[in-house]
Amino acid sequence: MYKIGIAGATGYTGVELLRILSRHPNVEIKTLTSETYKGKRIDEVFPTLRNFASQELVSLDSSVGEGLDILFLALPHTTAMDEAPKFLKGDCRIVDLSADYRLRNASTFEEWYAVPHTQRELLKSVVYGLPELHREAIKSASLVANPGCYPTSAILALAPLMEEGWIDLDSVIVDSKSGVSGAGRKPSQGTQYCEVNEGVSAYGAARHRHTPEIEQEISGLAGRKLQITFTPHLMPMTRGILSSAYGRLTKEITLEKLVSYYKDYYEGEPFVRILPTGQLANTSYVSGSNFCDIGLQIDLRNKRVIVTSAIDNLIKGASGQAVQNMNIMLGLDEKAGLDFAPSFP
Amino acid sequence: MYKIGIAGATGYTGVELLRILSRHPNVEIKTLTSETYKGKRIDEVFPTLRNFASQELVSLDSSVGEGLDILFLALPHTTAMDEAPKFLKGDCRIVDLSADYRLRNASTFEEWYAVPHTQRELLKSVVYGLPELHREAIKSASLVANPGCYPTSAILALAPLMEEGWIDLDSVIVDSKSGVSGAGRKPSQGTQYCEVNEGVSAYGAARHRHTPEIEQEISGLAGRKLQITFTPHLMPMTRGILSSAYGRLTKEITLEKLVSYYKDYYEGEPFVRILPTGQLANTSYVSGSNFCDIGLQIDLRNKRVIVTSAIDNLIKGASGQAVQNMNIMLGLDEKAGLDFAPSFP
Amino acid sequence: MYKIGIAGATGYTGVELLRILSRHPNVEIKTLTSETYKGKRIDEVFPTLRNFASQELVSLDSSVGEGLDILFLALPHTTAMDEAPKFLKGDCRIVDLSADYRLRNASTFEEWYAVPHTQRELLKSVVYGLPELHREAIKSASLVANPGCYPTSAILALAPLMEEGWIDLDSVIVDSKSGVSGAGRKPSQGTQYCEVNEGVSAYGAARHRHTPEIEQEISGLAGRKLQITFTPHLMPMTRGILSSAYGRLTKEITLEKLVSYYKDYYEGEPFVRILPTGQLANTSYVSGSNFCDIGLQIDLRNKRVIVTSAIDNLIKGASGQAVQNMNIMLGLDEKAGLDFAPSFP
Amino acid sequence: MYKIGIAGATGYTGVELLRILSRHPNVEIKTLTSETYKGKRIDEVFPTLRNFASQELVSLDSSVGEGLDILFLALPHTTAMDEAPKFLKGDCRIVDLSADYRLRNASTFEEWYAVPHTQRELLKSVVYGLPELHREAIKSASLVANPGCYPTSAILALAPLMEEGWIDLDSVIVDSKSGVSGAGRKPSQGTQYCEVNEGVSAYGAARHRHTPEIEQEISGLAGRKLQITFTPHLMPMTRGILSSAYGRLTKEITLEKLVSYYKDYYEGEPFVRILPTGQLANTSYVSGSNFCDIGLQIDLRNKRVIVTSAIDNLIKGASGQAVQNMNIMLGLDEKAGLDFAPSFP
Repeated sequence: MYKIGIAGATGYTGVELLRILSRHPNVEIKTLTSETYKGKRIDEVFPTLRNFASQELVSLDSSVGEGLDILFLALPHTTAMDEAPKFLKGDCRIVDLSADYRLRNASTFEEWYAVPHTQRELLKSVVYGLPELHREAIKSASLVANPGCYPTSAILALAPLMEEGWIDLDSVIVDSKSGVSGAGRKPSQGTQYCEVNEGVSAYGAARHRHTPEIEQEISGLAGRKLQITFTPHLMPMTRGILSSAYGRLTKEITLEKLVSYYKDYYEGEPFVRILPTGQLANTSYVSGSNFCDIGLQIDLRNKRVIVTSAIDNLIKGASGQAVQNMNIMLGLDEKAGLDFAPSFP
Repeated sequence: MYKIGIAGATGYTGVELLRILSRHPNVEIKTLTSETYKGKRIDEVFPTLRNFASQELVSLDSSVGEGLDILFLALPHTTAMDEAPKFLKGDCRIVDLSADYRLRNASTFEEWYAVPHTQRELLKSVVYGLPELHREAIKSASLVANPGCYPTSAILALAPLMEEGWIDLDSVIVDSKSGVSGAGRKPSQGTQYCEVNEGVSAYGAARHRHTPEIEQEISGLAGRKLQITFTPHLMPMTRGILSSAYGRLTKEITLEKLVSYYKDYYEGEPFVRILPTGQLANTSYVSGSNFCDIGLQIDLRNKRVIVTSAIDNLIKGASGQAVQNMNIMLGLDEKAGLDFAPSFP
Repeated sequence: MYKIGIAGATGYTGVELLRILSRHPNVEIKTLTSETYKGKRIDEVFPTLRNFASQELVSLDSSVGEGLDILFLALPHTTAMDEAPKFLKGDCRIVDLSADYRLRNASTFEEWYAVPHTQRELLKSVVYGLPELHREAIKSASLVANPGCYPTSAILALAPLMEEGWIDLDSVIVDSKSGVSGAGRKPSQGTQYCEVNEGVSAYGAARHRHTPEIEQEISGLAGRKLQITFTPHLMPMTRGILSSAYGRLTKEITLEKLVSYYKDYYEGEPFVRILPTGQLANTSYVSGSNFCDIGLQIDLRNKRVIVTSAIDNLIKGASGQAVQNMNIMLGLDEKAGLDFAPSFP
Repeated sequence: MYKIGIAGATGYTGVELLRILSRHPNVEIKTLTSETYKGKRIDEVFPTLRNFASQELVSLDSSVGEGLDILFLALPHTTAMDEAPKFLKGDCRIVDLSADYRLRNASTFEEWYAVPHTQRELLKSVVYGLPELHREAIKSASLVANPGCYPTSAILALAPLMEEGWIDLDSVIVDSKSGVSGAGRKPSQGTQYCEVNEGVSAYGAARHRHTPEIEQEISGLAGRKLQITFTPHLMPMTRGILSSAYGRLTKEITLEKLVSYYKDYYEGEPFVRILPTGQLANTSYVSGSNFCDIGLQIDLRNKRVIVTSAIDNLIKGASGQAVQNMNIMLGLDEKAGLDFAPSFP
């Protein structure tokens, strides 16, 4: 059994990691940290976990990584940056769920996050943990930067289009819709029930910090620096992200061929499902699972492709993907602990 | 007091008309029709209306229009087409909430709706009832085609951009998000609570019937035939539409100037509110009102404009706009019966 | 036009008061206070109110009541207690939406609220503002204590049963279900969207502070001290309270007779609607209105009566009832500003 | 591997059975029936199941049970009654999720369901499938009647009180709150999204068909015929039932002792969790799991006990409990396939 720790176990990604790992056949959870709840038992904080986990929450100090095979960092952005290096000792490897190590270019990070990146050296060895693009590198990485929720949905939707000259690579627009859990567990006015219930709103248009993360990955695939327009929206639901991506076609292609091309592209991927021709994505059909569903349409009149993708933001968009990365890092079956069907209704 | 009838009073747009008109200072409701519930009282069908309306529902026959000043048709699409001419006698004028008379070009109608248009002659005199664009023509129209919900939100978002050469007019993409009430009241598998709750889905991408309606109106403003890519999405909420429209800028403009231009464009419009610089639209801030809020952003890096607009789909997107049209047709204060603030929370 | 002030205008009851009063024909709003947002305009805090209200928010000091006819106190519990006496000067009268003056017996207040009541003398002249029970006294009151949301729904459900010996008065159990807006606007972990969405929970069973308020009023009707068991529950919705009250019948009565008796009891009440025989209450049918709907059933097998009542907690349960009280105090039509139908869907 | 069939696989309980069984270590699914969708693959009907199940749906005929170890009947009420006997041949045993075999007394069934019971002989050998009460009998039963959702939550809440003389057994009132999935998947006006969203309503007070089922089981425990008052309510959420049960205490007992007594009563039960002293039940903490949480309170002033219980209506209230019954019938680990933590948020 591999030994696992979670730093920041009492946020939504932390508790979801715990829920998934509580059924994982190859791991045991040794350490859970929380500054807010230290001294309490995890199932006192989350009554859902009663009968499943009862560890006492401890403070995050440098001894936390000792004896661990994998430490998940589910810490607030900018906190993880300085904590990560402390634990990269002995055999302990890290999956970091924060944004701190996702951008390979420290200057880009500093531009979008408006804080200095203090670990430029370490950044060089980090692997961006999207298994569909970087599986090989993840296997041996010491520090894997787990992708953001929006980027996961957007990059998987766009990746196949980056490689074949189907579209004008400068024409990409991504319009994403997210459930509220993406904002985290910390109380704020804007995520109070009555403030978001029964309403949909746009925010952060053209300025959201997940933009450069999407651009980094699709640029890597395209072989040149790309830019996109990205607008996130907040939906009145707990889980799920639907991204609708638009691009101008530069070649003639039928919908059938496009669907078939996507199926080939993701052949063998355990967690990507290409929907049958004519079907579009629905977050209800992936909720509670590690799947990313992709549905395609072509606007023949206007020669545009429309790619819709759906994920559960807390699973494929965070904790499930983190476990997928862990499985790859440890040489386990990539589906271990993640082989469950979406829940519907 | 003007005399009013509603044909199809027991759908969502019908009952919303009734609710609004029950407080209108200048009208009295004479006739309500329903094939499903005829013989029942309206407040038996909608307990909300107890103490406000108690008319008996009658069948729709040719005598229904007699003595009326305005007849609202809140009938299913394609039913209204053949019913409308029967009531255009005497002084009775019509506001039709169906899609049947919205497209001036009968061939376009037939192409998108896949049924013949049987009233091509009548179509010529119809006015598209978006007051912000066609107020003068509405005043004297006999038959006003009340706009669709998505088109109302999209056209108001795009109109100012059609006239000044700000954008490449062939680059427009509209990504809309609607509450479930837009699908009407008739039971169907797809709008059962558990099928749509906690999920967001794309549908009808590049094929939705509201597409040519948006194109007709923005083409009229631009002075040439335009086409857009339009993707609607279903949200887990009852009311509200948020549209996010994207276009490629062809001139340099600051956000401040753009906001100022939109404010000028809609100067004096009682039901359009341009949000302060930097704010984006939120359906919660218009819910329960006849307002359309418009919020703007510029993606400087990619030279694109992002226009977000929010309406209550049952009010500005249907019944409120129908009353606004009625007010204009009857020479009343355009805000009569509609001068209420959105409800929040 | 009467001159009105609202102390604490930026909570949910404050903004709902503003929304209602913005259409009231006989009042003008002179003063709005907020400690959190002072210096801002009200429509900057609540974009819903743009075009309806643009007053600058000021701090609550002793000059606030000057020149006012009615000051609404929408302040946190225990804050209102010491503020109220400062404004009972000149012609200014008060409707207090807090709990501070609702219990006539200061000792009972101190027992349930665990703070001393500092205004025992003033308490003697306060009128409990449930118009259906205390209309005459409200007319001339200087300080009206606006009822709590749960008590409004429970007392109106139970009142007719207190007077005719129908039930064992010691057998009453009230099980109430409330939307989240009842918890107020202040951010807290427990009212974050993801914490309450898609779940129902019981809380405060047998200990909730609204218990003695219900007991005080039904005891007054029964002519002796009564006690009830009261359990509130939190529902995943913004507005609405449904109360289900149970009592053991001590006389034989048919459902038809009971419904008829309730209709007689509330004859002429503008905001109480007794549902037809066999129908039970539904918050959807009162949402957005000042109505209280009451639906009855008899459990013949067990000789129990079941009374269900529904209100919009922010209107009849708070701000609408406060306006109703204001109307009575000022000698206006009791329905002024409140004569709107519920919104459905 | 045991061989399993599901008759009626395309309702909500059917698809939830499939989801659970798709991860069960000891079974393989041989047959799925659906009259509505026969000829289609199950993952065409439920896109959630893609990659997990792809069986073709067949019609329910008498050959369906052949070679099966367990056949689940997830058929509409009254349909299961006549179908069940057809499959009790060979080694095939049945778990029936309908109400048809839950009431041991055929006359009681006929009184509450208003249809004749055509299988009175078979009824005598049926076991009511609540493992916490009837585990031994379930082991060898040929036909297990899987309990209703409300009864599961109510009986587990009340059972410990039936045996020790704590309460007046004729004083029991159960007030239950259910998510919409309990109404099944078939489209109806009353379960359309916009009809139930943002509202709570009472229905079937004192008349709901689950009443005699609760009474049968608690009467069995008490050793004499008991009656209760039962009122169900519909909540705006997909999954979950919270029941609040009230009874008059006849002995003095502290809350601590009561909690301790409940813990002892359910000692060793894998799917009942007694909440710590002072905590009440919340459906969010059991959602997605087979747990029933029970939280207690005592109303000292009125000498009443308040028992709150929470289940996921589709799991412990239907399909999860059916799998639990199957495990017991087949001599498997009772937790097999059900050992997953609730999902939160």
